[in-house]
Amino acid sequence: MKIGVKVLPRKEVLDSQGRAVEMTLKAHGRAIEKCRVGKYIELDIPETDTDKALARAKEMAEFTLHNPLIETFQLEVVKG
Amino acid sequence: MKIGVKVLPRKEVLDSQGRAVEMTLKAHGRAIEKCRVGKYIELDIPETDTDKALARAKEMAEFTLHNPLIETFQLEVVKG
Repeated sequence: MKIGVKVLPRKEVLDSQGRAVEMTLKAHGRAIEKCRVGKYIELDIPETDTDKALARAKEMAEFTLHNPLIETFQLEVVKG
Repeated sequence: MKIGVKVLPRKEVLDSQGRAVEMTLKAHGRAIEKCRVGKYIELDIPETDTDKALARAKEMAEFTLHNPLIETFQLEVVKG
């Protein structure tokens, strides 16, 4: 089962990549209010039960995929 | 309206970050089949209509957020 992990910088943290993308889009006339840039990790876990797969993905995200000081993460089940 | 852009390396492309994460997780006893690492970009677009916001996000993703040679992207509406 595929689980997606979305990792985004915390709101309090300066997100220099997000700012750069925001400025580039604005400079080229695109209407944008704010932009945050993070990571997306797709985990293929050998587990068919959704709850168990999500629990394992959470454990992996907490173990090594995100830095709790500056980032938050969200999980999602990837269809197909 | 917030639109999330998930950018992942194409399957044919060597994903060195994904491999590194996969090896690290395996080395620490986590059951994982495959792992791909990409980007997640959250765009805050001043537009209340979902279809229009998605169309704008698609245009921005094609314009500068992803490299079509080596990456694919998916859009999603971010709730809350």
